[in-house]
Amino acid sequence: MDVPASDVLTAYQDLEKRFKRLSDIRGAEGVLHWDSATMMPPGGAEARGEQLATLSVIAHQAITDPALEALLDEAEGQAGYLDGWQSANLREMRRAWRHANAVGADLVEALSREGTACEMAWRGARKDDDFAALSPKLASLLGLVREKAAAKAAAFGCSAYDALLDAYDPGTSSADIDVIFDDVREFLPGLIAEVTERQAQAPPPLPLDGAITVEAQRALGEAMMVQVGFDTHFGRLDVSHHPFTVGVPDDIRITTRYKDGDFTESLMAVLHETGHALYERGLPKDWRGQPVGEARGMTLHESQSLLMEMQASRSDAFLTFAAPVIRKAFGGTGPAWSEDNLRRIYRKVEPGLIRVEADEVTYPAHILLRYDLERAMLADDLQVADLPGAWAEGVKKWLGLDVPDDRDGCMQDIHWYGGDFGYFPTYTLGAMNGAQLYAAAQRAFPSIPGEIARGRFETLNGWLRDNVWSKGSLLSTDDLMRSATGEVLNPKYFKRHLEARYLG
Amino acid sequence: MDVPASDVLTAYQDLEKRFKRLSDIRGAEGVLHWDSATMMPPGGAEARGEQLATLSVIAHQAITDPALEALLDEAEGQAGYLDGWQSANLREMRRAWRHANAVGADLVEALSREGTACEMAWRGARKDDDFAALSPKLASLLGLVREKAAAKAAAFGCSAYDALLDAYDPGTSSADIDVIFDDVREFLPGLIAEVTERQAQAPPPLPLDGAITVEAQRALGEAMMVQVGFDTHFGRLDVSHHPFTVGVPDDIRITTRYKDGDFTESLMAVLHETGHALYERGLPKDWRGQPVGEARGMTLHESQSLLMEMQASRSDAFLTFAAPVIRKAFGGTGPAWSEDNLRRIYRKVEPGLIRVEADEVTYPAHILLRYDLERAMLADDLQVADLPGAWAEGVKKWLGLDVPDDRDGCMQDIHWYGGDFGYFPTYTLGAMNGAQLYAAAQRAFPSIPGEIARGRFETLNGWLRDNVWSKGSLLSTDDLMRSATGEVLNPKYFKRHLEARYLG
Repeated sequence: MDVPASDVLTAYQDLEKRFKRLSDIRGAEGVLHWDSATMMPPGGAEARGEQLATLSVIAHQAITDPALEALLDEAEGQAGYLDGWQSANLREMRRAWRHANAVGADLVEALSREGTACEMAWRGARKDDDFAALSPKLASLLGLVREKAAAKAAAFGCSAYDALLDAYDPGTSSADIDVIFDDVREFLPGLIAEVTERQAQAPPPLPLDGAITVEAQRALGEAMMVQVGFDTHFGRLDVSHHPFTVGVPDDIRITTRYKDGDFTESLMAVLHETGHALYERGLPKDWRGQPVGEARGMTLHESQSLLMEMQASRSDAFLTFAAPVIRKAFGGTGPAWSEDNLRRIYRKVEPGLIRVEADEVTYPAHILLRYDLERAMLADDLQVADLPGAWAEGVKKWLGLDVPDDRDGCMQDIHWYGGDFGYFPTYTLGAMNGAQLYAAAQRAFPSIPGEIARGRFETLNGWLRDNVWSKGSLLSTDDLMRSATGEVLNPKYFKRHLEARYLG
Repeated sequence: MDVPASDVLTAYQDLEKRFKRLSDIRGAEGVLHWDSATMMPPGGAEARGEQLATLSVIAHQAITDPALEALLDEAEGQAGYLDGWQSANLREMRRAWRHANAVGADLVEALSREGTACEMAWRGARKDDDFAALSPKLASLLGLVREKAAAKAAAFGCSAYDALLDAYDPGTSSADIDVIFDDVREFLPGLIAEVTERQAQAPPPLPLDGAITVEAQRALGEAMMVQVGFDTHFGRLDVSHHPFTVGVPDDIRITTRYKDGDFTESLMAVLHETGHALYERGLPKDWRGQPVGEARGMTLHESQSLLMEMQASRSDAFLTFAAPVIRKAFGGTGPAWSEDNLRRIYRKVEPGLIRVEADEVTYPAHILLRYDLERAMLADDLQVADLPGAWAEGVKKWLGLDVPDDRDGCMQDIHWYGGDFGYFPTYTLGAMNGAQLYAAAQRAFPSIPGEIARGRFETLNGWLRDNVWSKGSLLSTDDLMRSATGEVLNPKYFKRHLEARYLG
């Protein structure tokens, strides 16, 4: 073939322009979502819902434009002229196209509008502990989510749940998850029992005294965000009900929440979200605004946040560095503020009601509960009205606790109320991938713990940049894990980590 | 004609849907602009510029869609079936269409991108007092603005400057402005001389002492915003370099700026922006998202902010109410904090360098300067590189002052650096309309000053809601003024107001 590449690549180049525009719209949507959760006055909810619905319709129109399908066909016919990154970009464009074209514009608009409305209603209902008021809105939103899942399932030739899952964690099926989660179901109850029993034999950690103000927590959080490697020229830290990260690589917004008198939750949320933020910052610069330049999926995203929060920031090494910093931040003195006591606070394992406050040992129990319930809701085996009862039953079974109210029960998380079903498993898959990646980084650079003990994250971040962040969506999750760690996801690293830290 | 209205109105109804979508995009753009000026980390500027450029291209494509022109033609052919509001809405749709279709998509995108880039560069250059670094960016942006003005001038059959002006103040030409401004050029120097001479005869106001912290200013500003009638369920107050108002009627963002130790500027900026915010809140609810539901133009918008700031909030009545509130806010005691001294501070007339800090007597001088310079730049009679010199000359002529640096000279205002030429005259036209409207409101309800002295704004706001806010863009500015005050804009009310307040 003698046709010069510059001629035949017109279709591909046109696609790059179109997907860049889509990326700009998504970026704008990100700011609007961030604003809704952090800054927007309550009266603005309805207008914001309409703005977001309109943007999602525009994005949907752009990606369902028949001209775009023709360009994809043409570019795929010229695939031989594309280099590796371009080929992967084209593959990701087709993936995005398949997801969008499985669903009609009316449904997209309805999902955006009802998702925003339900999310706003959730804020009020959660405050009032009034699930009955929220239930019809969730039922109606769930109806739309099921419509979307059914349409995608038909288009992809998979189950409805797998069709949703694929949007968050490309290439993973519930059959894969079941194999891994069945293992967790097997070992988790015994591990929780053994760890809590072991901790019960020691006296409980001393409670922290002193003025643990919100202002001092905020200052510590911002300092730690910078310490672990985030440049605040390209992002900011705010407050929202549920911590999250959103943005584009040069403008990343993370949030946390503060409890007066207790800094542990707010600080760990900052470190968690900073893990997400570092991944976004480290995405390949040359591919910004293109599908292949995006993070590989939510499982790998969670692997980065949990690697930072659980693997690195609760390690002995980090506590050696952090203990004096924390003491200084709050003017803490005495045995309660010793490194050893702080370690015991950070490593306290105790079944609790709230997922985002859970320790890493009991956390998977929260996920098993949600994974089972959302699959049942999607399959119409569980009605929304029956959710509080099923929730209470699951919490009893997995955590041994009674659920006193829906606020700290089935209304605690934003996900379902924004229409996100199929997202929860990525947290525990992320924890497992994070453990495996952290182990590989330490094998490659045994100096990492010693450096972290001095507050240095360059080597760890450099390894993550080379092996995860800079890859964008070039590789599948399996291939990325294989190239970074030598094998695909293997839960043994996670289990081994928990046993070493809590029973070693 | 026996065709039922519901059939023939299809074209009009389709237009309503399309313009609602445009309004949603504009709303999203508003949030992104607000965020850029208040929240965005500096690194985000480039990505934000691309997001805004993409949204402006999308909006431009929607309004230049040939199908939309066909719908306008069809709906205008069925105008007999439309009621008064619908007819006015169709007229405003055509007006928006004319503005958009005079300019090509490439130019729209370039204007948005270079406008954002120049605005961001302005923030840095202003800080560094480095006009030379900014000058090429402004020159390039001005080139694009001139292209736009020329294209619109050709399409509308008017001058380039009038074509820009029409976007801010529909129906007003520079010929109209010249008649009014020539009058101002005539009386202003004498008035400034007479007032400053009169004030020089009295001892200067006592300086305010005590802890005028930013936090106390913020609390006072928020309280005053509510006091004069704004419901913060539907808006919020933040900080930006240049105070502004943006948003949709249920979510209005206003900003101010704080000087430690001096509350007068921040408070008056809050009251000014709250005047804008009340106008937006009071727009006709039934016409939200439609062109006829928008404010009539920037001159009337400024009439509302300046009515609140200058007419109401510097009146004797308001000071009677506000003096004790202000004393309480800052713990002020003694003669410096007396009602009389506060009045003298608020009414101090003194030529200064900064427009937004100017008193209402010298303010028109700042506008004459900018009006002359921006017309010269647009006509290519003044090069951007020569702007600092021309600025210094104008400030000397109108205000009798030397300009020490460009930071407080030609770089003080954001307008030109965001591509806004033709906007400045609306400030002084607004001040004049505001004076005329306030006089009419008091004729209708002589109780207004007495009520304001007790902190009550319901009667004034009710009259403004009935006569200005709820009209949206139903009437032309002239017709609105005629219906509200009995005559079109007549500068005598403004002149009379200044003479009564400062020489009475």
